[in-house]
Amino acid sequence: MAGNRAVAYKGPGEVEVIDIDYPVFELKDGPGVNPANVGRKVPHGAIIRTIATNICGSDQHMVRGRTTAPVNLVLGHEITGEVVEVGPGVEFIKVGDIVSVPFNIACGRCRNCKERKTGICLNVNPDRPGSAYGYVDMGGWVGGQAEFVLVPYADWNLLKFPDRDQALEKIMDLTMLSDIFPTGFHGAVTAGVGVGSTVYVAGAGPVGLAAATSALLLGAAAVIVGDFNDDRLAQARSFGCETVNLGAGELVDQIEQILGVPEVDCGVDAVGFEARGHGGGEAPATVLNSLMDVTAAGGALGIPGLYVTGDPGGVDEAAKKGSLSLSLGTGWAKSLSFTTGQCPVMKYNYGLMQAILHDRVHIAKNVNAKAISLDDAPRGYAEFDAGAATKYVLNPNGYLDAA
Amino acid sequence: MAGNRAVAYKGPGEVEVIDIDYPVFELKDGPGVNPANVGRKVPHGAIIRTIATNICGSDQHMVRGRTTAPVNLVLGHEITGEVVEVGPGVEFIKVGDIVSVPFNIACGRCRNCKERKTGICLNVNPDRPGSAYGYVDMGGWVGGQAEFVLVPYADWNLLKFPDRDQALEKIMDLTMLSDIFPTGFHGAVTAGVGVGSTVYVAGAGPVGLAAATSALLLGAAAVIVGDFNDDRLAQARSFGCETVNLGAGELVDQIEQILGVPEVDCGVDAVGFEARGHGGGEAPATVLNSLMDVTAAGGALGIPGLYVTGDPGGVDEAAKKGSLSLSLGTGWAKSLSFTTGQCPVMKYNYGLMQAILHDRVHIAKNVNAKAISLDDAPRGYAEFDAGAATKYVLNPNGYLDAA
Amino acid sequence: MAGNRAVAYKGPGEVEVIDIDYPVFELKDGPGVNPANVGRKVPHGAIIRTIATNICGSDQHMVRGRTTAPVNLVLGHEITGEVVEVGPGVEFIKVGDIVSVPFNIACGRCRNCKERKTGICLNVNPDRPGSAYGYVDMGGWVGGQAEFVLVPYADWNLLKFPDRDQALEKIMDLTMLSDIFPTGFHGAVTAGVGVGSTVYVAGAGPVGLAAATSALLLGAAAVIVGDFNDDRLAQARSFGCETVNLGAGELVDQIEQILGVPEVDCGVDAVGFEARGHGGGEAPATVLNSLMDVTAAGGALGIPGLYVTGDPGGVDEAAKKGSLSLSLGTGWAKSLSFTTGQCPVMKYNYGLMQAILHDRVHIAKNVNAKAISLDDAPRGYAEFDAGAATKYVLNPNGYLDAA
Amino acid sequence: MAGNRAVAYKGPGEVEVIDIDYPVFELKDGPGVNPANVGRKVPHGAIIRTIATNICGSDQHMVRGRTTAPVNLVLGHEITGEVVEVGPGVEFIKVGDIVSVPFNIACGRCRNCKERKTGICLNVNPDRPGSAYGYVDMGGWVGGQAEFVLVPYADWNLLKFPDRDQALEKIMDLTMLSDIFPTGFHGAVTAGVGVGSTVYVAGAGPVGLAAATSALLLGAAAVIVGDFNDDRLAQARSFGCETVNLGAGELVDQIEQILGVPEVDCGVDAVGFEARGHGGGEAPATVLNSLMDVTAAGGALGIPGLYVTGDPGGVDEAAKKGSLSLSLGTGWAKSLSFTTGQCPVMKYNYGLMQAILHDRVHIAKNVNAKAISLDDAPRGYAEFDAGAATKYVLNPNGYLDAA
Repeated sequence: MAGNRAVAYKGPGEVEVIDIDYPVFELKDGPGVNPANVGRKVPHGAIIRTIATNICGSDQHMVRGRTTAPVNLVLGHEITGEVVEVGPGVEFIKVGDIVSVPFNIACGRCRNCKERKTGICLNVNPDRPGSAYGYVDMGGWVGGQAEFVLVPYADWNLLKFPDRDQALEKIMDLTMLSDIFPTGFHGAVTAGVGVGSTVYVAGAGPVGLAAATSALLLGAAAVIVGDFNDDRLAQARSFGCETVNLGAGELVDQIEQILGVPEVDCGVDAVGFEARGHGGGEAPATVLNSLMDVTAAGGALGIPGLYVTGDPGGVDEAAKKGSLSLSLGTGWAKSLSFTTGQCPVMKYNYGLMQAILHDRVHIAKNVNAKAISLDDAPRGYAEFDAGAATKYVLNPNGYLDAA
Repeated sequence: MAGNRAVAYKGPGEVEVIDIDYPVFELKDGPGVNPANVGRKVPHGAIIRTIATNICGSDQHMVRGRTTAPVNLVLGHEITGEVVEVGPGVEFIKVGDIVSVPFNIACGRCRNCKERKTGICLNVNPDRPGSAYGYVDMGGWVGGQAEFVLVPYADWNLLKFPDRDQALEKIMDLTMLSDIFPTGFHGAVTAGVGVGSTVYVAGAGPVGLAAATSALLLGAAAVIVGDFNDDRLAQARSFGCETVNLGAGELVDQIEQILGVPEVDCGVDAVGFEARGHGGGEAPATVLNSLMDVTAAGGALGIPGLYVTGDPGGVDEAAKKGSLSLSLGTGWAKSLSFTTGQCPVMKYNYGLMQAILHDRVHIAKNVNAKAISLDDAPRGYAEFDAGAATKYVLNPNGYLDAA
Repeated sequence: MAGNRAVAYKGPGEVEVIDIDYPVFELKDGPGVNPANVGRKVPHGAIIRTIATNICGSDQHMVRGRTTAPVNLVLGHEITGEVVEVGPGVEFIKVGDIVSVPFNIACGRCRNCKERKTGICLNVNPDRPGSAYGYVDMGGWVGGQAEFVLVPYADWNLLKFPDRDQALEKIMDLTMLSDIFPTGFHGAVTAGVGVGSTVYVAGAGPVGLAAATSALLLGAAAVIVGDFNDDRLAQARSFGCETVNLGAGELVDQIEQILGVPEVDCGVDAVGFEARGHGGGEAPATVLNSLMDVTAAGGALGIPGLYVTGDPGGVDEAAKKGSLSLSLGTGWAKSLSFTTGQCPVMKYNYGLMQAILHDRVHIAKNVNAKAISLDDAPRGYAEFDAGAATKYVLNPNGYLDAA
Repeated sequence: MAGNRAVAYKGPGEVEVIDIDYPVFELKDGPGVNPANVGRKVPHGAIIRTIATNICGSDQHMVRGRTTAPVNLVLGHEITGEVVEVGPGVEFIKVGDIVSVPFNIACGRCRNCKERKTGICLNVNPDRPGSAYGYVDMGGWVGGQAEFVLVPYADWNLLKFPDRDQALEKIMDLTMLSDIFPTGFHGAVTAGVGVGSTVYVAGAGPVGLAAATSALLLGAAAVIVGDFNDDRLAQARSFGCETVNLGAGELVDQIEQILGVPEVDCGVDAVGFEARGHGGGEAPATVLNSLMDVTAAGGALGIPGLYVTGDPGGVDEAAKKGSLSLSLGTGWAKSLSFTTGQCPVMKYNYGLMQAILHDRVHIAKNVNAKAISLDDAPRGYAEFDAGAATKYVLNPNGYLDAA
């Protein structure tokens, strides 16, 4: 049996590549595994040799020490790979298939899964609805920034690419299907983006850029991306967005300068609870409040940015409990609506795959995807945290050497 | 020309029946009329002799002195009546028609009206999208708790009842079409209520009872209404709801006792910013936070309860600015969605009228509608404010003497 | 191992109770089993001891000899029962669970299942998308008018009732969840029925009555059911519908007499290809053409009634090929829309179960459900074919003796 | 008062530019004016000096003599222009505004208009719901292939372009907003086109090309256009579509060759009742039947192509009555849905305008728009009828001389 090398959280600010066990069709005890999940049999699972496994902004919350993630938790929920083994309960997925793994783990048997709400599956996380690989308080499924990873309910969860060669050729785009592309798309869809919409996306990190890409794919007339980071804004401009540097003046004025009116039809929050204000300090409600200001009456806010129920590093007592001081009166006067939560990846990944395979969208270019070795993961984490306008894609098994 | 008697706001806690001018096809200056609306011609208007005109919970915000409403503002936005005169630009509405007036005033010509968003019409309120009769900061259209009232854009706004005799026979039900029935219905619809849903409605005032009625009409399996007021809860039980007295224990426990599970599919906030906590003091965020607690993952919150942008009587600085401390982290973890704002009455009033006319729903009975004379309006306001489980319907022209 | 008695098709006009094998976790060869399905392993299956298993109008197409169904095909796709055995791949369904079996067999792993289109699952019928138990050309899954039946993909397909005693108490209602209640509901939903709609349902057989029940549950203002059979029309009137006897005059005139206008908002075809005209002969397009006549501009037609691709007993060459002479020009001028196909039961059965369990609907009473013994099945088929206003429910294991 | 020159139908195969009256705010008697509309006052109207007014495929039905259009009927329902006069009931539209006129005339006051169903307005055509300028049996509103035209209910119907110079610069694109762009878009939307869809569009005339353009704008992965006309197919390829020449083999095989699978997700019928079969003769059902063949189970058909209630030139008795022999059994087995009817232009034209103004779509280029003089209209009709891959735009007032 092969070994397995993986990226683990080692404490605030620290990640390291460590040796872990090669996966078996059972969830073994380990760092962060929910006791009720220990020993869970996974005959419906598949073992994946990772082709591409990306560093996500939400991993950074753990790495910055803003969560209760235990040391040695294996990170990684953005996984694309080749199936190397399937459990006895797997019928349609075959060894050799090249597949995308939705970051939300779902059973395909509960009421929520049957209703396409795979982001809040009832059967995979003993604590509450919803789960993910390599994430604190999500049930303990081992992360996929590794050479190999176990995917449960493989027939349900895995999206098989129709052609191996075509898949490997477009692999840097396809790897975005596991999380950020559907997540950004969900933000745009729930913000009501349609043909002719004007859109403001708060945040030019990978999810923001994916939301902007999605808005254009959905036919938006104009997409404006806001951030403090000029490199990331330049990235947004590279594929047809307008941008505003939030340090350069009032958002509403900058929007008016671009559109001729001081408001947009749709707003996307691609930042979440670690939002920063003009002064540079954390201001967790600032993004949502500014979105309510600039979204036109009757509009909608898509909120893929993560808000947490508890944040030990919160700026004040309210933030520590996950409470935000929101100008709901403003939102109410404008009849706004709001959609929160994890993206149910399986609702979107097939269509987005088709758009990629038919060359209708270039998500890797838009988020500036860059392949690095597994051993370089600590550097990737650090550069990303420092604000690099780059989406880091780990290459644990050499498939991306050509890419 | 006839005179006109009307209910006016006379200062905190005070309303009085006063003499005002009989309407003409122009918006004249007066208390609370937006300067930009003064002198506005209304050839598209109709003059209505009121048959029924109801006291609304949102009127109470003004009467309690929680707004900047000026003295002598004529109140009333829930209007049903007979057309006695039409302007030269009216083509389809005829003198003698019995009509329901949606409380939101809409032009039927702007982008929002064309998109059925009549709660945020762009052309009737110079200050911002959205307007209503007899309401502070809504453009200054004269209220309808009066013998006669002017309705602009009559062909667009008015819902004509198909048969005069049938209409007068069911008038106590039909009068709820101007506001609370569609408003409650909008709350239920935006909370995602469908066949088989379990629903929690916060607040057993008229809008809460209308939301509960609507949920049942939409096929809900179980509707639970919560309040501190036992009389109002008894009213909810009278038509098939379950109830919880919020003073009698934790909401989540009481829901579990009723349903066997500690959560509902759908939540409706029929309270708004003047919410009270267990201690009896105002706690503006308490309703929304408790709805996030008890609504199941994947659910939705319909928020017809009013939240304001500024509240001079707010309990603290945040409340005064219309800011609420919301546990958005809880909502996000559950992938909840939220819909706020005025109900766009015209989206629903035709269907609800049909349901009334075909005896499929008995909204007057459910909200305990009670006709009183125009002169009794001050008493109606006082009793309603004191918590009477009654929806007061004014009868300025004697049409309801039989009812 | 127990034996198994089952209702089989024995030739045109003939059904008989025969002895068949007790199910195993494999699809064995037999009458009507698709060769590509022979020997298919079913470790994900459950064996159900039937509690209630109903005779369906679509069974009659086979029994009348209007299909290529082979002799000895075991009939029955409306199944409710108790789980007595589960395969090794079943994780959440347990022995002892009381369950409803959706008539469409679905894998829970293909693209269509993931999109909730379980009526056209891609993996269960080698011939084409979609399958059902005991039905010709549907893959060969053995029918459930039997003491025991095998249900594949049990964790996905089965709807578990929350409480055994409650389920057995309401079993005559709950047995309608396997097909006719969701099928009628789908007809109403796809016809656009909502609160306040006026609805015409063509056909007062069980599906028509279920569609009418559903329309009322969805809040319809008025539901009109049409048929030539007075007993069935009386059944419709028993729960609040209006009716028209199609032999008594023009449909459009009768609708005008009831509603005051000669049209309805929504139309449901609960008849299908064996429609009869005024003269009594088959007229396969007559229902759809009359629905286009009486449905108002902008309306929709829900078409749960079955139309086939080939009908050896068709009245003419076109009918034999499944072609209909439709007045599409009329439909186009009115901007009508049309929805066809098998109901995706899993989309609706949970909500309808909730409505039943909370006493919000009484479908068994509305369709006049009647339990008979398995041995009486031939009589049930004959009476149903002769036009009895009864829904026959077989009781193969005595559970219904009390009901 | 100015004169007015206009294109009129003069008998089968003949159109001519004639002198007609300059419009007034009243519908006067004339060729094809419904008696009940004669003398109708139009104080809510605006008089438009046409900037661009296009020849439409549906005009050809009249010109070919396939309808009961009377001689001297003024043609033209695709109108863009400058407001030169407004009636006394017009409040928001101003003289000098550059506007697009939706081809469906709508009152903005009836139930259907309030529900955004402006293609079936109840108040403008005494014969039945729905109307258009210059069209037989549509109420008699005078056509707009003229120097000047009257638009009733101007505040409701007209879409004002935000900036005059920008509008004139993009006028060849914006002129498509009056009909074919929204009509094609409606076809794509009702066919269920979304991000990643595969789409087949039957017909490469202007509406087909507009539907294909719309499908791409909506994010379709692949759009295949079919026709017998190679020039029109070349036009489709010019902006990224795949094409099939229907004379070159079976449609299903050609689709398989392109996509790797013999079916598409979505089908659009941009042909209508004058469809031709492989043999070259008319075969009115052939397009719909072939769409049912190639659309995957669970798909939808958008049917913007016109089907009529009566066609004096129909190939057989059924066609003369507007009946089609449709393989509905095939559609039913696949659970297909179908949407017919006039496009409600006002539902889409704002968003499509925004997409044009922000350079997100180039509809004029895609349909090969070509401006010609009013006097050249007869030549335009003839060339278009002969199959030119061109959309003819009349230029009655010289505005397009620069374009």
